[in-house]
Amino acid sequence: MSDAASDTTPLPDIQSSGDERQIAINKVGVTNVRYPISLRTPGKGQGNEFIHTVATINMFVSLPHDVKGTHMSRFLEVLNEYHNELCSDSLRLVANRMKEKLDAKDAYLELNFPYFVDKQAPVSGQTGKLDFDVTFEIASNGTDDFVMTLKIPATSLCPCSKEISDYGAHNQRCDMTVKVRMADGVHLWIEELFAIVEQCASTQVFSVLKRPDEKWVTERAYENPKFVEDIVRDLAVALNKDDRIVWYQCSSENYESIHNHNAYAFIERDKR
Amino acid sequence: MSDAASDTTPLPDIQSSGDERQIAINKVGVTNVRYPISLRTPGKGQGNEFIHTVATINMFVSLPHDVKGTHMSRFLEVLNEYHNELCSDSLRLVANRMKEKLDAKDAYLELNFPYFVDKQAPVSGQTGKLDFDVTFEIASNGTDDFVMTLKIPATSLCPCSKEISDYGAHNQRCDMTVKVRMADGVHLWIEELFAIVEQCASTQVFSVLKRPDEKWVTERAYENPKFVEDIVRDLAVALNKDDRIVWYQCSSENYESIHNHNAYAFIERDKR
Amino acid sequence: MSDAASDTTPLPDIQSSGDERQIAINKVGVTNVRYPISLRTPGKGQGNEFIHTVATINMFVSLPHDVKGTHMSRFLEVLNEYHNELCSDSLRLVANRMKEKLDAKDAYLELNFPYFVDKQAPVSGQTGKLDFDVTFEIASNGTDDFVMTLKIPATSLCPCSKEISDYGAHNQRCDMTVKVRMADGVHLWIEELFAIVEQCASTQVFSVLKRPDEKWVTERAYENPKFVEDIVRDLAVALNKDDRIVWYQCSSENYESIHNHNAYAFIERDKR
Amino acid sequence: MSDAASDTTPLPDIQSSGDERQIAINKVGVTNVRYPISLRTPGKGQGNEFIHTVATINMFVSLPHDVKGTHMSRFLEVLNEYHNELCSDSLRLVANRMKEKLDAKDAYLELNFPYFVDKQAPVSGQTGKLDFDVTFEIASNGTDDFVMTLKIPATSLCPCSKEISDYGAHNQRCDMTVKVRMADGVHLWIEELFAIVEQCASTQVFSVLKRPDEKWVTERAYENPKFVEDIVRDLAVALNKDDRIVWYQCSSENYESIHNHNAYAFIERDKR
Repeated sequence: MSDAASDTTPLPDIQSSGDERQIAINKVGVTNVRYPISLRTPGKGQGNEFIHTVATINMFVSLPHDVKGTHMSRFLEVLNEYHNELCSDSLRLVANRMKEKLDAKDAYLELNFPYFVDKQAPVSGQTGKLDFDVTFEIASNGTDDFVMTLKIPATSLCPCSKEISDYGAHNQRCDMTVKVRMADGVHLWIEELFAIVEQCASTQVFSVLKRPDEKWVTERAYENPKFVEDIVRDLAVALNKDDRIVWYQCSSENYESIHNHNAYAFIERDKR
Repeated sequence: MSDAASDTTPLPDIQSSGDERQIAINKVGVTNVRYPISLRTPGKGQGNEFIHTVATINMFVSLPHDVKGTHMSRFLEVLNEYHNELCSDSLRLVANRMKEKLDAKDAYLELNFPYFVDKQAPVSGQTGKLDFDVTFEIASNGTDDFVMTLKIPATSLCPCSKEISDYGAHNQRCDMTVKVRMADGVHLWIEELFAIVEQCASTQVFSVLKRPDEKWVTERAYENPKFVEDIVRDLAVALNKDDRIVWYQCSSENYESIHNHNAYAFIERDKR
Repeated sequence: MSDAASDTTPLPDIQSSGDERQIAINKVGVTNVRYPISLRTPGKGQGNEFIHTVATINMFVSLPHDVKGTHMSRFLEVLNEYHNELCSDSLRLVANRMKEKLDAKDAYLELNFPYFVDKQAPVSGQTGKLDFDVTFEIASNGTDDFVMTLKIPATSLCPCSKEISDYGAHNQRCDMTVKVRMADGVHLWIEELFAIVEQCASTQVFSVLKRPDEKWVTERAYENPKFVEDIVRDLAVALNKDDRIVWYQCSSENYESIHNHNAYAFIERDKR
Repeated sequence: MSDAASDTTPLPDIQSSGDERQIAINKVGVTNVRYPISLRTPGKGQGNEFIHTVATINMFVSLPHDVKGTHMSRFLEVLNEYHNELCSDSLRLVANRMKEKLDAKDAYLELNFPYFVDKQAPVSGQTGKLDFDVTFEIASNGTDDFVMTLKIPATSLCPCSKEISDYGAHNQRCDMTVKVRMADGVHLWIEELFAIVEQCASTQVFSVLKRPDEKWVTERAYENPKFVEDIVRDLAVALNKDDRIVWYQCSSENYESIHNHNAYAFIERDKR
């Protein structure tokens, strides 16, 4: 499916013909578009550093009941207007440009990408990159909605296992997923939300751990046992406290080391 | 995490202790449990045939603000009460049993599984199995909610490509996803919803096609071109007409043969 | 692509025409076919029990340099000859039937499916199902090759973390993958290979664990720390000892609870 | 698992202790490490352009029979020596550095990443990015082996369907996977192998297609029908002709628009 709005070729434009079914379409567009993007980071005092990554992108508009089809090629044309320079600074512009170029009332832009933060090991101070998934959902449909989702790996250690066992305690990697909406005009860096979230598990994970670091994280997890219920409650406490956040969903999925299934808990709250 | 409610061992029960954070948990439980299940099919006049498949199951309950943890092992114990005989007939019972056994106000049971229907090729009449994904979401939280989702593969052929080209037209596999809630007391077989959905693409897909069948489906798709917008609108028309269905979401994702990304459209409607 | 060998319709058979490129094809066929299968289990003395599951199947034949194409629909026809009754007993017959029906020198049949064993919790004796992935690769190409692969979840506990920490030790779920070829004429049950493999980690995983069981597995893992290197070496020792096995690959992937990446080790040996 | 070779802390080094099992390990290391990388491109005459992407990385060394464990943290330390600047130019150095730092006889480095080429639409000349997956496998085990794999999306159109149908022909997206080893001293750009591969299907896919382009690709595919067998044979013909390539595997997987399963063919050849 494509269009030729600016072509001189007189090929028929089926998409622009009418439709009799009287059914408006909530969202129509393209999915699973992979594209290189860069993200502005808080930087080191200069605010001018960027992270390069690859996003999987969905782009949608609404379609009124009386129009047969949208012009799919224009979604990609909008992306390509930012050729090699699609940046987190431009995403609201991209959504608005989609509305304009596709002559639509509503536009939706979703990006999912791996992100990286440099973390220092707790004792040796060795620096390494921690990777996690981030999703941005931008709506330009009258509300200018923006939802940011972080999926942060960490360690959970079971309080029951610790309490009932003579030694040891089962522990495992978990993924904490936090989805937030911010108050009007508030900007929240990925790094800021990340810092809030990774405090809420039994201990953090790191990419490089030397032996003194490994001793530290092992003992720290043992001293700080948490059920999956504790993790989501501590996430909720932290997100409740932060006035920049007006709505959230938070969950944790723990890849139990003693089972072949996972433990999971979920809390949603709208402060508005 | 586990419990020992029926054990004589006097091991401490951490989960049952109190919690001071004043935060109730919407859902807590187990995810990614694989389990064999059987599903009753409409059968051939006798209503007594079953399909055996494997479900990936999530099980949750709500947890009040003043209880520290749920008892995770009991979710699996509930499943195991139906050992080797977990059947579609019992799913509402399973959800109710979760509430009882976990002393919870709300229970949620989700099952995702491959399903099979026997389909005859259009000309040769050869029978083959078509596989597709089905999801059941059962809530026992005062509302007795039930949502059934089918993801049905089919063929879509592009009307624009057909119209502008001297010969041929690009076509591709698509997945139509339909999520429905039924009116009170109404039972809808998977096979019934499947039959409604697979009519809505350019043509159906089959597992065995002999040459006369392949000629038939090729020509049928060419005679019946549909944009992704047409497919979701035709799904909406069909679901609007059926009074057994009171709420639905429908979408189609077309794996465009001329791109490395997909076309997608989505409609939601609540008739209530 | 399909064929009409037995049809009276005089549609041309392009596949059977010649090819001039002088290039034989090693494998041609169908992939990602989902199909219900049943597997004979050792049973409880009677040898007559079956497990029902769903396989993802690949089917290939070789194609000589001078034939343009194979007849894809016949692969599915062969499967459908075992309609609703495709069983582990018949797989060698299926491979031979592929050769015959597709007039091929070599046939390859691959099945991947979830499997279930009933396991008793170590103290409470509660029974639950443990799920894991099994792959069968059957070749009928002069050698009658058969390769069985099991991917078994278990627990690994880090010896270094235990040794250097004042308390606790990081542990995590791991997946041990064992791929074996058997001596001529030897039959090995999935359950037999499973029993060998699951002894090799720090401790086993279970589906239902009551508190006394959880205490047992926690302490057992702590008493039995193993690096990923220890796990694959213990797998190799066990597989070396078993004369029924003449070739193997074994590996373990440990989902480290202190990192967001995994530890992995791999050993291959041909005893022949 | 970690090490403290350079630490003053006198924590015991379990990994360096002996092992009595007499079993050498082929590969031990880390898997699923996500890391930002840059790749040098042929550029536009200047040879100085880079593509930024994200790789999923596996790193292994061999371990002699008498050493208990490797030092896992050193793999990540090697990566971090190239902090924010891991580049395709350095990969052989990384593999050699792994051998040195881990005191190993053999080192293996595997990277899988999405890659992007700018392609012009055939008629309108509009530029867009095509994304595909690339894998590099580097061995430093005496042989200095290097294997490059490209998985390229394209369009396939069925010759049988075209021949037997009065109009139309089923077509679909396919993925061609080509894995090559080069002659000694030969460098082959991703872009060069990509150009060879994408000629071999019925037509190429593009990210932006205006209506005249869509007409072109639709008609081009119809004029150039290919079975999955034709695609792999044409790949083999092209790879046979290129003396820079001494070994290859090539395959195509076609996501049949008329089935819910795929067609597949595979050829392997060693010219040496």
